[in-house]
Amino acid sequence: MAHTAGEIADFIQAQLIGDGSVPLKGIASITSARDGDLVFVEDERNLSSAIASRASAVIARDGTNLGSKPLLVHPEPRLAFARAAQKLCIRADRKPSIHPSAVIHPSAILGGGVTVEEQVVIREGVQIANGCRIGAGSVIGENAVIGEACEIYPNVTIYPGVRLGNRLIIHAGAVLGSDGFGYVRDEKTGHYEKFPQIGRLEIEDDVEIGANSTVDRGALDVTRIGRGTKIDNLVHIGHNVHIGEDVVIAAQTGLSGSAVVENGVVIGGQVGIADHVKIEAGAILGAQSGIPTKKIIRGKGVVFWGTPARPIREYLKELAALARLARKS
Amino acid sequence: MAHTAGEIADFIQAQLIGDGSVPLKGIASITSARDGDLVFVEDERNLSSAIASRASAVIARDGTNLGSKPLLVHPEPRLAFARAAQKLCIRADRKPSIHPSAVIHPSAILGGGVTVEEQVVIREGVQIANGCRIGAGSVIGENAVIGEACEIYPNVTIYPGVRLGNRLIIHAGAVLGSDGFGYVRDEKTGHYEKFPQIGRLEIEDDVEIGANSTVDRGALDVTRIGRGTKIDNLVHIGHNVHIGEDVVIAAQTGLSGSAVVENGVVIGGQVGIADHVKIEAGAILGAQSGIPTKKIIRGKGVVFWGTPARPIREYLKELAALARLARKS
Amino acid sequence: MAHTAGEIADFIQAQLIGDGSVPLKGIASITSARDGDLVFVEDERNLSSAIASRASAVIARDGTNLGSKPLLVHPEPRLAFARAAQKLCIRADRKPSIHPSAVIHPSAILGGGVTVEEQVVIREGVQIANGCRIGAGSVIGENAVIGEACEIYPNVTIYPGVRLGNRLIIHAGAVLGSDGFGYVRDEKTGHYEKFPQIGRLEIEDDVEIGANSTVDRGALDVTRIGRGTKIDNLVHIGHNVHIGEDVVIAAQTGLSGSAVVENGVVIGGQVGIADHVKIEAGAILGAQSGIPTKKIIRGKGVVFWGTPARPIREYLKELAALARLARKS
Repeated sequence: MAHTAGEIADFIQAQLIGDGSVPLKGIASITSARDGDLVFVEDERNLSSAIASRASAVIARDGTNLGSKPLLVHPEPRLAFARAAQKLCIRADRKPSIHPSAVIHPSAILGGGVTVEEQVVIREGVQIANGCRIGAGSVIGENAVIGEACEIYPNVTIYPGVRLGNRLIIHAGAVLGSDGFGYVRDEKTGHYEKFPQIGRLEIEDDVEIGANSTVDRGALDVTRIGRGTKIDNLVHIGHNVHIGEDVVIAAQTGLSGSAVVENGVVIGGQVGIADHVKIEAGAILGAQSGIPTKKIIRGKGVVFWGTPARPIREYLKELAALARLARKS
Repeated sequence: MAHTAGEIADFIQAQLIGDGSVPLKGIASITSARDGDLVFVEDERNLSSAIASRASAVIARDGTNLGSKPLLVHPEPRLAFARAAQKLCIRADRKPSIHPSAVIHPSAILGGGVTVEEQVVIREGVQIANGCRIGAGSVIGENAVIGEACEIYPNVTIYPGVRLGNRLIIHAGAVLGSDGFGYVRDEKTGHYEKFPQIGRLEIEDDVEIGANSTVDRGALDVTRIGRGTKIDNLVHIGHNVHIGEDVVIAAQTGLSGSAVVENGVVIGGQVGIADHVKIEAGAILGAQSGIPTKKIIRGKGVVFWGTPARPIREYLKELAALARLARKS
Repeated sequence: MAHTAGEIADFIQAQLIGDGSVPLKGIASITSARDGDLVFVEDERNLSSAIASRASAVIARDGTNLGSKPLLVHPEPRLAFARAAQKLCIRADRKPSIHPSAVIHPSAILGGGVTVEEQVVIREGVQIANGCRIGAGSVIGENAVIGEACEIYPNVTIYPGVRLGNRLIIHAGAVLGSDGFGYVRDEKTGHYEKFPQIGRLEIEDDVEIGANSTVDRGALDVTRIGRGTKIDNLVHIGHNVHIGEDVVIAAQTGLSGSAVVENGVVIGGQVGIADHVKIEAGAILGAQSGIPTKKIIRGKGVVFWGTPARPIREYLKELAALARLARKS
């Protein structure tokens, strides 16, 4: 999608310094940029290499034009670059289409501009709103509801009755709405019997879920993921978990049943959150930290680390004290 | 499936207090219950809210009838509720059927009442016993054998020759029978060569395996999972692992090659069990704990925690001592 | 595939002691060996049980023939056994074929001897070289390039543009080329916006990737996995990660964005490697260890353990000092 540097500057609300008629066809890193690419600089020390690169235009924080290329000046260059990519990285030839190898139940309702790729299965009563893409081999269970402009990558499984909002991105192999891990032990026999897992899963607008992640439905009630939350690959979300808005969860983290994560929490990779834990708004959990059952983590902007997780200052102090102790002994 | 309160009381062997003719159509939590729902109370403090809810009947431990609803009195309300769900939550309209988009090798043998969903692949020599359901997009490899009444969810992959018992539940995206992680390093070149992974995988009756979990076949011999064992999402079971009966393994735990887990062990989430470890009967491993190579964990009912895992009393004492030390320094 | 003991001895460059005309049809462990099987012994204490087993021939380090069976003497019995398996474990009846249920774009180019199993999807512009096998239900995205003799197991998803070398083995459910986890927070709204994930994924020859593992494409540049590297199940490789040659990564380990792992590194299970970490050649990371952001791990042959990872000698000293401290207090 070719645009001019001026059009992109307008779109991202940047100040243009230099020739606005320069055509832009894509985005790139400084090292890989070619003619027609837009690049960005966060650290001004990289500005000279951006200018010297083969890129056609540069987004930078500072407006000092070094002369040879148009500069798009914006206080948040990374954010501006991400937005420019929305214009410059649109995949071409995405005419909506329903592949004849897909099996779509006649009762399913598909909106306008929906693409259903090869070998997809759409079961009875499913509703898919305008502009969605259902990737090859994905299976959409009975009565699932998918909002507008969702991108479902291949080989995703959505269990019956799951409800997704608008503009979700679900990466390949993810499983949404599987049974939670709930059993009752019969003390007489020592056997486990399955506790019913018949609740709902609701995921709000603008959520992205990584490849091969799994999100369980509620046992009797609901598992919910709030608007704008971003979840990485191989993450596990247990039954009845409630995740707020604008939460970030890195890869391989697990949330056990009935955990609550409030708005704006940031969770590193491989974190373990036990059942009935509450992570209050704005807390930050370092990678591999562990939160024991029923614990409440409180502190906007405070980083917690270790198992059991404690404020990082305490944890680092303990590590240092332990190292000293070991050296002495 | 509508039943009366009296029928359900009989089925779960509860004592009925009140009107046994009340119709029951489903189960629910107290907060979400509607007319026709059965709910349960474990903590008697919740009994009044159960009685005040819109539910039509209540399972409780204590027989004091508060009057307005039939009470089903049972010493283990959660267990009784789980069993009632078996009657009240049967999915309707599950007529067995073979979808024409499935590709079934002519040599495969399917029992009575088997459902094969859309886009399924069943290879040469497969045997599937009565009453199974094979979810859309699943692939059943050559000569695999599946017992009666198994529920295989969509997009599951079963490698050739895997043997499953009766009444298994395998959630979406699980992989059963993949190659173990075994190589031999050629010291001259520094390259790794694949050690053969041609063993078997046998999973006994009543096992449930979570979404996107992976279970490797034996290298030369067998990987085995015992009757009634329950495995959560994203769990990894390595080659030659032997897991006993009635074991519980929470999400994202990994068992390395040749580990042995005896009957009745409970393993938390994100636990790491190294190769050739033995977890003796009835031990409990806390979340994120780690068991080093060849270690034996012994102690029925003892909780182990930390890496390397130690009895939780020791571990908590160490954490407290460390915190004191850090405060002093 | 029947061979004589003499042929196998020649193939693996072992010294034959005994009757070279004995027919060999397979491989096995000592305990499960049957007539026609080849077994191996690493520890000479097991030699007598190998000789007493039902196996037809034995690979051993030591040339003392105990008489009753042909011995194939090799200084590295496990390596020799792995190589013998290449001759003795070839799956029969693997005539190349394209199943009619596969959907292959007319522009895709398939080499000679390629097998495409049931329900596969091969999109526009894909190139698949000679001798590959694409497992049932797998999806190969637009313009992906797959080298010779690759084995892609069922239900694998390969995103558009991914490039694979020769002789790769990709186990079921793996996802190659998914978007990395990159967002920019708009400080005004607190919302996260997607940073473009349009880079490449290149995997070199002889790499094996385990079931349900996920490998992200680069954000703007490339994610690369070097020749001969072996990756276990449920591993996560983030965007822009560079992994060298002959690296071993055990199950459930995660590598965050832009991590660099040099040649010959060995990484245990459930290890967490943060972003921009560098693991220098030949280092060994113990299971569950954690490497914080931007850290450099240096030391060929040195084992690191704990979070944050330190040389194992230090770590064990700290554990011992802590245990002593707790006992005293």
